Parts: sequence; C-alpha cells; structure tokens
Amino acid sequence: MPLAKKLIKRLIKDRLSLALAESASGGYASYLLTQTPGASKIFKGSLIVYSMEAKNKLLGLKIKLLKKNQGVSKTIALALAKKVRKKFNADIGGALVGFAGPAAPRKNKLGTFFVAVSSKNKSLVKKIVLKGSRDQLRKKSSRLLIQLIYASLHCH
Amino acid sequence: MPLAKKLIKRLIKDRLSLALAESASGGYASYLLTQTPGASKIFKGSLIVYSMEAKNKLLGLKIKLLKKNQGVSKTIALALAKKVRKKFNADIGGALVGFAGPAAPRKNKLGTFFVAVSSKNKSLVKKIVLKGSRDQLRKKSSRLLIQLIYASLHCH
Repeated sequence: MPLAKKLIKRLIKDRLSLALAESASGGYASYLLTQTPGASKIFKGSLIVYSMEAKNKLLGLKIKLLKKNQGVSKTIALALAKKVRKKFNADIGGALVGFAGPAAPRKNKLGTFFVAVSSKNKSLVKKIVLKGSRDQLRKKSSRLLIQLIYASLHCH
Repeated sequence: MPLAKKLIKRLIKDRLSLALAESASGGYASYLLTQTPGASKIFKGSLIVYSMEAKNKLLGLKIKLLKKNQGVSKTIALALAKKVRKKFNADIGGALVGFAGPAAPRKNKLGTFFVAVSSKNKSLVKKIVLKGSRDQLRKKSSRLLIQLIYASLHCH
C-alpha cells in the first residue's frame, strides 16, 4: 500500500485532521494524499504558497525571514507547518520548501528541501538533499513529507 | 509543448498573475502549472479547499450555498475563482470543483466537474462530464481547467 494511503487510513482511524503548506512541490503532496477515496474525512486542505507574497500575506511569515534564504530554511518550514495547521484548524500541519529549479541561489543548493510537521505538542523538521530532474525532486520531496508526517505519529 | 507550459509562458509574456482554488483535483492542476521552471514569476499560489470548512472559512463561501449541491455547482466554481483571485491579489483566478469519488451524491454525478476562470472584467465557467478512474477524472479535469484559463486569454 502506498504510504500516502497508509497515512490517510491511519489519520481517519485516529480522527486526526491534516492541512499542508506546499511551496516547491506545487501541490503534489496534496494530490498524493487525496488520491485515497475518503481522504476528505480528515484532509482539510492546503495552501500552495508558491510566492513570497503568499507566504507573507496568507500565512503571516515576515518578509525579513523569507528573504534570508530565499524562503528555504528549517525555520521557514517549521513556521509554515504551524501556521497552516492553525489556519485550517487542523490537528496536524505539514510543510515543504526547497529548491527544485533554476531559482536556486547556487548550484549546490539545487535539491535541498526542508519538510516539517507541527501538531499541538510536537514539531519535527528534516533537511533533505536530493538528486534528479525538477519533476523527480518535486515528487521525491513530496513523498518524504508524507513519510515525516507518518513517522511523527509514532514518536511521542 | 504541454498546454500548462504554453499557458505559463503566455502569462509571463503578458505579465498576468494567476492563483487557483482546487477542490476535487487536490492540487494536481497547481502541480502541472508549476512544472515549468520560472512559473513562480506569475504563479502566486493556490488554495486546496478540500473541505466545506475550508471553502467557508478561507474563501468566505456561505455554508448554505455549499450544502446545496455538496459544494459542486457552477455558482460555487465561479465564486471560488473570484475569491481566490482576490485573496492572492492575482490578475486571474481559476477554480475546479467536482465529483471524483465515492462522495458523489448519486452514481450519475460521478465525473461531473465545473471549471471556472475569473479576471477583473470577465468570468467563464464550464460544466464537464468525464469518464474514468478517480485518478483519470482528477487529471483530466485539471487539464480542462488549464485549457479554460488559456482559452479565456483569447476571448475578449
């Protein structure tokens, strides 16, 4: 069973709702999670905050922070996960930021992603460095966000 | 060239920004649009309003309206397109609602989608009836939303 499906089934069983904030992945993680029929029981929705303006205006992250690492850092991933959880009134918030393409500030930054999970009592964030095409990077990082959310259910 | 890429290139050329509200497609249309490097120049972001609560709280649609057709109607698609355009301060707003799975109220409603586009001076909405698996329905309807946005640039 794909991990996205496993996660949805587990969240339905535990009655835990979920919301995501996606940047570089552009909605792919949300697409994967909503492939499972019945996902609407616990999946409240997502914000694809592709622009700095959206991260600032819709989730309240400060421009100064966003400019620091072109919007890609541990702090930003964590902040997005927490803010999107609150915005959607969900039990769990997940977030993904990273460099999948030509906007990477340096070549060695391409493939660097941060995935984060936030719940009321817990936060988790992970840096990942991936290789591959733009599409592969976006798909892999989306799967790693789902993996992190799943893992977070098991660590107390 | 895939239509999503053609649309992004055209929007960059015309300096028109875009934001989406996706329901049944769960983020797939946004994923398709952000496959093109440089999409961030004009793609501001999306709201995946998968739940009725999200459509109400984040985009201000009335619960009474949302309950009418289980959130799937011409009026709702149009309202989502307009509200998301304003929320993201974009030139163009696109929206997609539909029945891709078991939540369809009757069997004959499965595969019914509405795609809509809103700009300052223009609104377009289209009903589409599709056949296929859940995944095919979500992918096809996403492509049809992109097609409608592209078409809207050519009708004055």
